[in-house]
Amino acid sequence: MRLAAPGFGRLGHARQLDLYFGGGEANVAASLANFGVPAEFVTRLPENDLAQACLRELHAYGVATDHVVFGGSRMGIYFTETGAVARPGNVIYDREHSAIAEIKPGMIDWDAVFEGAGWFHWTGITPAISAGAAEVCLEAVRAARKRGLTVSCDLNYRKKLWKYGKPAGAVMPPLVEECDLILGNEEDAEKVFGIKPDAQGYLSVCKQLMARFPRAKKIAITLRGSINANHNTWKGVLYDGNTLYESRQYDITHIVDRIGGGDSFMGGLIYGLLTTPGDCQRAVEFAAAASCLKHTVPGDFNQVSVAEVENLMGGNASGRVNR
Amino acid sequence: MRLAAPGFGRLGHARQLDLYFGGGEANVAASLANFGVPAEFVTRLPENDLAQACLRELHAYGVATDHVVFGGSRMGIYFTETGAVARPGNVIYDREHSAIAEIKPGMIDWDAVFEGAGWFHWTGITPAISAGAAEVCLEAVRAARKRGLTVSCDLNYRKKLWKYGKPAGAVMPPLVEECDLILGNEEDAEKVFGIKPDAQGYLSVCKQLMARFPRAKKIAITLRGSINANHNTWKGVLYDGNTLYESRQYDITHIVDRIGGGDSFMGGLIYGLLTTPGDCQRAVEFAAAASCLKHTVPGDFNQVSVAEVENLMGGNASGRVNR
Amino acid sequence: MRLAAPGFGRLGHARQLDLYFGGGEANVAASLANFGVPAEFVTRLPENDLAQACLRELHAYGVATDHVVFGGSRMGIYFTETGAVARPGNVIYDREHSAIAEIKPGMIDWDAVFEGAGWFHWTGITPAISAGAAEVCLEAVRAARKRGLTVSCDLNYRKKLWKYGKPAGAVMPPLVEECDLILGNEEDAEKVFGIKPDAQGYLSVCKQLMARFPRAKKIAITLRGSINANHNTWKGVLYDGNTLYESRQYDITHIVDRIGGGDSFMGGLIYGLLTTPGDCQRAVEFAAAASCLKHTVPGDFNQVSVAEVENLMGGNASGRVNR
Amino acid sequence: MRLAAPGFGRLGHARQLDLYFGGGEANVAASLANFGVPAEFVTRLPENDLAQACLRELHAYGVATDHVVFGGSRMGIYFTETGAVARPGNVIYDREHSAIAEIKPGMIDWDAVFEGAGWFHWTGITPAISAGAAEVCLEAVRAARKRGLTVSCDLNYRKKLWKYGKPAGAVMPPLVEECDLILGNEEDAEKVFGIKPDAQGYLSVCKQLMARFPRAKKIAITLRGSINANHNTWKGVLYDGNTLYESRQYDITHIVDRIGGGDSFMGGLIYGLLTTPGDCQRAVEFAAAASCLKHTVPGDFNQVSVAEVENLMGGNASGRVNR
Amino acid sequence: MRLAAPGFGRLGHARQLDLYFGGGEANVAASLANFGVPAEFVTRLPENDLAQACLRELHAYGVATDHVVFGGSRMGIYFTETGAVARPGNVIYDREHSAIAEIKPGMIDWDAVFEGAGWFHWTGITPAISAGAAEVCLEAVRAARKRGLTVSCDLNYRKKLWKYGKPAGAVMPPLVEECDLILGNEEDAEKVFGIKPDAQGYLSVCKQLMARFPRAKKIAITLRGSINANHNTWKGVLYDGNTLYESRQYDITHIVDRIGGGDSFMGGLIYGLLTTPGDCQRAVEFAAAASCLKHTVPGDFNQVSVAEVENLMGGNASGRVNR
Amino acid sequence: MRLAAPGFGRLGHARQLDLYFGGGEANVAASLANFGVPAEFVTRLPENDLAQACLRELHAYGVATDHVVFGGSRMGIYFTETGAVARPGNVIYDREHSAIAEIKPGMIDWDAVFEGAGWFHWTGITPAISAGAAEVCLEAVRAARKRGLTVSCDLNYRKKLWKYGKPAGAVMPPLVEECDLILGNEEDAEKVFGIKPDAQGYLSVCKQLMARFPRAKKIAITLRGSINANHNTWKGVLYDGNTLYESRQYDITHIVDRIGGGDSFMGGLIYGLLTTPGDCQRAVEFAAAASCLKHTVPGDFNQVSVAEVENLMGGNASGRVNR
Repeated sequence: MRLAAPGFGRLGHARQLDLYFGGGEANVAASLANFGVPAEFVTRLPENDLAQACLRELHAYGVATDHVVFGGSRMGIYFTETGAVARPGNVIYDREHSAIAEIKPGMIDWDAVFEGAGWFHWTGITPAISAGAAEVCLEAVRAARKRGLTVSCDLNYRKKLWKYGKPAGAVMPPLVEECDLILGNEEDAEKVFGIKPDAQGYLSVCKQLMARFPRAKKIAITLRGSINANHNTWKGVLYDGNTLYESRQYDITHIVDRIGGGDSFMGGLIYGLLTTPGDCQRAVEFAAAASCLKHTVPGDFNQVSVAEVENLMGGNASGRVNR
Repeated sequence: MRLAAPGFGRLGHARQLDLYFGGGEANVAASLANFGVPAEFVTRLPENDLAQACLRELHAYGVATDHVVFGGSRMGIYFTETGAVARPGNVIYDREHSAIAEIKPGMIDWDAVFEGAGWFHWTGITPAISAGAAEVCLEAVRAARKRGLTVSCDLNYRKKLWKYGKPAGAVMPPLVEECDLILGNEEDAEKVFGIKPDAQGYLSVCKQLMARFPRAKKIAITLRGSINANHNTWKGVLYDGNTLYESRQYDITHIVDRIGGGDSFMGGLIYGLLTTPGDCQRAVEFAAAASCLKHTVPGDFNQVSVAEVENLMGGNASGRVNR
Repeated sequence: MRLAAPGFGRLGHARQLDLYFGGGEANVAASLANFGVPAEFVTRLPENDLAQACLRELHAYGVATDHVVFGGSRMGIYFTETGAVARPGNVIYDREHSAIAEIKPGMIDWDAVFEGAGWFHWTGITPAISAGAAEVCLEAVRAARKRGLTVSCDLNYRKKLWKYGKPAGAVMPPLVEECDLILGNEEDAEKVFGIKPDAQGYLSVCKQLMARFPRAKKIAITLRGSINANHNTWKGVLYDGNTLYESRQYDITHIVDRIGGGDSFMGGLIYGLLTTPGDCQRAVEFAAAASCLKHTVPGDFNQVSVAEVENLMGGNASGRVNR
Repeated sequence: MRLAAPGFGRLGHARQLDLYFGGGEANVAASLANFGVPAEFVTRLPENDLAQACLRELHAYGVATDHVVFGGSRMGIYFTETGAVARPGNVIYDREHSAIAEIKPGMIDWDAVFEGAGWFHWTGITPAISAGAAEVCLEAVRAARKRGLTVSCDLNYRKKLWKYGKPAGAVMPPLVEECDLILGNEEDAEKVFGIKPDAQGYLSVCKQLMARFPRAKKIAITLRGSINANHNTWKGVLYDGNTLYESRQYDITHIVDRIGGGDSFMGGLIYGLLTTPGDCQRAVEFAAAASCLKHTVPGDFNQVSVAEVENLMGGNASGRVNR
Repeated sequence: MRLAAPGFGRLGHARQLDLYFGGGEANVAASLANFGVPAEFVTRLPENDLAQACLRELHAYGVATDHVVFGGSRMGIYFTETGAVARPGNVIYDREHSAIAEIKPGMIDWDAVFEGAGWFHWTGITPAISAGAAEVCLEAVRAARKRGLTVSCDLNYRKKLWKYGKPAGAVMPPLVEECDLILGNEEDAEKVFGIKPDAQGYLSVCKQLMARFPRAKKIAITLRGSINANHNTWKGVLYDGNTLYESRQYDITHIVDRIGGGDSFMGGLIYGLLTTPGDCQRAVEFAAAASCLKHTVPGDFNQVSVAEVENLMGGNASGRVNR
Repeated sequence: MRLAAPGFGRLGHARQLDLYFGGGEANVAASLANFGVPAEFVTRLPENDLAQACLRELHAYGVATDHVVFGGSRMGIYFTETGAVARPGNVIYDREHSAIAEIKPGMIDWDAVFEGAGWFHWTGITPAISAGAAEVCLEAVRAARKRGLTVSCDLNYRKKLWKYGKPAGAVMPPLVEECDLILGNEEDAEKVFGIKPDAQGYLSVCKQLMARFPRAKKIAITLRGSINANHNTWKGVLYDGNTLYESRQYDITHIVDRIGGGDSFMGGLIYGLLTTPGDCQRAVEFAAAASCLKHTVPGDFNQVSVAEVENLMGGNASGRVNR
């Protein structure tokens, strides 16, 4: 559950908070379902009206939740405020002791979850929450691998999480090892694995990641240029071991909500790889355009259609009114 | 009636809609009344509280509505969402079967309407709605011409309208033929009349329009550069058959609401032509400044004063607080 | 789509409208899905973002929409304002020419719709909209009957609808004839069928309805006492041909939103009849308690749980905070 | 300008204020214009955007403002909060030094104002503001009398005003002497003129007022029973020197906004006396019903139609939804 | 931190939440500071912007926070929705693992806290949160007693708390034993201590409590009659071992926010006992009137002045507008 | 009290106003208190709920108000609207006859105020309001000087104030003469003292001010480049008689609220000079960074922490989300 200070107001002065639901994996699921790809979100939630509201929102986007398990006493919350100009956005995490943080191996029947599924995606936020969540993530990754699913991850390093005693660098490697597709940004690679770009820039990051995690067939990197809190540049690259496919770069001059930007890239990338499997250039362009558009809508979930993404991919970034 | 998704939210996710009244001709009337020029709006409205609300809003701006006729079962609605960066604004028209769409010749007593009037303005949105609306528009234009009123039009081509079977290119010519002043943009001229700019650019569009509609003594064109949905450039030109008068160009970097922009240009142009009849340069500068300012206020109607327009025409675009 | 003036404001003075989705049959489906009964809503919607928003809302409540067909140019709208004290609530219908109003027989594949279904419910609002909607309703009722579904209806007479030339009294009988369960209120029975209560009061209405429509095995009547726009009394009765089962009467002193009250009664009644088939008393109590609670939440859809309904049925109407 | 704490919030804790325009005489003018009676409001306003907003609102209701004079530096403001249960509503007046408070005799050309007019209404709030406002009020009353207009007043005693040195009891008599119709409540009569009811109750107040102000042909009294801040009873009486006509009493159980209640009674009374001159019973019933309905809408101005008032006068107070 | 669904909306459907700060002891401190009595609130808060917002709100009411200690990772939250008619209000507690729940003895320097203080108040909510909070509460009570402060408590039984393994009946007695003044309601006494009223009603509860906790010189009981969620009756009694002082009973017909009602009674009672020490009747009347008024303002903190309370105590419950 | 049209709406069309408290000196006090420097605000306020709200807000920020005196009948108000692009922001002052405007020498006990104080700050807005306010300001400045406080001022010229008959150029000199630190912008210096920059630019302004007011040991100037109403550049300089210390320049591309910008600079400057007394470069950098951040939060008061200012001073202007 995200509780956001309205407009450009600050959390320390808010009188009302806007309520959204979101989170790394949920955002990717919502993107995919919204694009028409069957998607399911698996988590653990407490039994209360707020958890029901979360399920309702996922259902509204078309995300299935049949294997959500119930228990624990609270849902993870994060409080956000939107940055402006030189004032950074801020996130206060209140995820400790949430139902998902207190999950234990065995609580989820991964065989049932993966029945009929083709792809499993996880993000680095889950193993950052608690040792239990990390163990369950590993359990899931291995079950997915065993059943032959494609496995993808977003490294998603969050400095303010990772408080339960183990560093990201110790927990992440066995999880990432099972992945076919790894998404990160330059900061993630450095903070989690100590991988720094050399003169080749992000190509070198792709190569180093692929060298370290040889099962990965593709590495994707998002590249955000933070001119200020309202104005970013944005592009992505996809490396298949041979070629580095680069999307066009977008100049996002009046950001509405950048939270979920990386997840919408991942949603777009999976959509692209599923719908035109061999076409890496199209996949990375779709991902970049989809996530560029995500920056223009409020909330964590991307709310744009395939047609809207394709219109932008086609080069129409003029923003003229459709009428 | 315009129902707009608040802020940068999307229509498909809105929980509240902002309610405005507007429309091509009404917007011009509101501009003029707001500048102190007596103006009246003529239309057909159903008998219900929403129509009364529309009249109330027009009266608030000082627009007379004495010759509005009542009947039909609904008022035309359009739903809008505001674009951001690379996401275009969107309009969903819900104007079919509105009271004005079901208007028939004879329902309005144009002789009574034009008693004492000096100028009649119509836009291409009216004949786009229905065959009946087009016929009544022609009836009005001819009645106006007969009584010696100045007649102006805004071509205002809207792809999503024009659904009743006749194309714009067939319906518009006899209407435009009666006009003394024609306003359009390059897209309008091409979509309605197949007129494309040659090497002379918009000057050639003016010349071609004037050649085709010889009764027109002046042609005006608005020039919008869509950098993205938040950031446009904006200027206008006015051609009197001899000289092309160009306004300064405005850089509108943080658009608040661009709907009604062209109408506010027309309102400013008529104001300029009425108040300093021979001064085409002043008229086009007033029109461009007035419509630049329209982009900074929410809703269809322009809310700025003559003094504010003149302050901007005078070159003060710094936006410093008046205090 | 319902567009409601916020708070106790009037439609003729509103600057914002609250957006809800609702409608007779949709409200019943939402009630049932919310209580955990699989439910599907079948209609015709245009292809635009507002229709997608409607589907999203239905999915949020768990209502399936797999057999919705798309076409037409607009979604039906109704505008509402909430009454206060001696000022009645008001509804402005803007449903003419909606996608559902322009439906024609054959557009919906009722065999596919009814595959695996056990119950079909319709309301008197659908045949009131247009001749086509009435024909499709008859088509549906007969298909349902043929496949052996239980068929129920809510007479739901709305004076402001029924404008297409045929009176309710002519259109409704063949539709109602196919029903196993008929819900109405005293006004409906009189306005549609000319059935007036005699000295036996609503029992006589039940008996007359059953006499006229012999296939009906149960008649239900809701009884609203309008003390004023904020304060109503509310109860329901269910007659099975032998016994009149009466619910307790609720004193609803501070109504939040009474629209959808009758539909929530029907949703509760179907739930009761499905879950404890032989227990008419429980069914009518469940229906009355569920719809009493509907009056306390905003929007057309009932948002209360089975546990909350049962708590009220059990006699706990004190409204003490649960903490 | 009224600035109101939203909902049941307190002024000392508000973060936003709702903006309305209102005031004793303006409210009566808005009632009359809204009922279709030509009405004009005369006052003095400063030259700024807030005053323009005030004029816009009056025009929206159809009130003419052709003789408003401009000058001074501020518009009078009053801040309000809505009471609840045992907590009274509160008003903070900030009207000192307003443009109207600083008005002087001669600033308004009453001959021009009264050209073609038939009725002049003033309230006790105007002479309470300043000596100048009292003098101008006297100037107006005498000019009206001289031209043969019907003159009415509402005594409207406000303890928190009357701060400029002269008591109401000294200022009001020469003003009231000129009136054909006097409206008050029991408190007004006592606080301004020391008139107390005897055993005959409000009839005796009418008689005493008529004895003291023999030019008055009619006396009206509003009778509010304050059960608590949300729940009042309300009725009115009209005395013509012979008969005391009493309206039915309304039980207003869920007040939305009671400010302007007395003014809406006066508006209804004048409407009644103008439209059915000899029918005092109808006039007082219309006034009572109109002002009962005023309690159900937010803001100072009454927003109900003649048809709605007549529906209530006819005995339909059930508040059933019109649909 | 309280996060409340706006209006009568439900938590499971909210899109925005109103943010208040409150809690048993904080509410009493805010009442006292608001009445002009120096008051300080002692707790443990995390170091983040939300905790700063909490301190800001306390300071706004004049409550000192000099001895608040910082640590832990989260602030306790409770989510609320307002009941209506037969739908009860609801509270979802999310207080586990809050900074105050993880407090340990020794973290607060009670000697420093009590320097110069005369009265210490605690409520049953604190020991309900965690074993640590209960231990610190005992530490505080004993330190206060040792330094000769008057100690009061509000039993405040909350069924949804008390989850850490020890029942209220085991934890509360040693805490309550130290108190000079005990406040409860009939349910509290029964649920915590198994004390049930006999034929003497609440007098017997007072006597039993005093017998069990002989150090207590006064027992107060609040008596809420829940007619429904909007309409309660409310009074309080105070027993000094000899006489039972009863306040008048208030009929709260249109509740705005009842959360904090008991705390505002306690704040009023302490105010009364401090300002007119021997006058139990005045104290209980002040407490009852203050808390009656609390029901008419949103949020946990009472926002009414001593003058407003005294006006109500004086019998003026008419709610007439002050103007 | 500031009443602001929400969003980019205009005052002449607003239906709600956002309520803030602010003013030149109060804003500086709030900045300092927010940074942890003990600060007190001295003024004269009326005795009403709005004045209490003002005190509450100051207390929330930690500003002491122990020497505020009460009297008069109103609090000064200013109405604001936010500019956009080429439309300037606007302020309507309604400060005449406010409690502070009607202050007289002797009303404030400056000896008591300055007991224990080290610094006194005033702005040119106070002597602009009324002759009495100017006299009390002089009284204060001289008392502060006499007790050895550091005295600073912000020239803060406001064309729309200064209406009581004496020009700024006559009133300000004796006040400014007593100051150790003078802040202004180029316009202030010219409008108040006729000081214009020569070829040395703002350095020459500093030198001329220092020559004219020799007691001043430091002159600060803020330099705002108004590209348009949303986009300004911003920097400051500090001159100590020898060296001109220049801050970096900030490019504020998406202004949230620029009102209070200069005051937040002054607050930052005093903070810098107090915490690292000899380091002029740090002080001006802190001031510029603090006030750059002020432009990103709504309301007059700066809401950013020392850590946030130092982060920006350190060169991190990327606005990346902290998570």
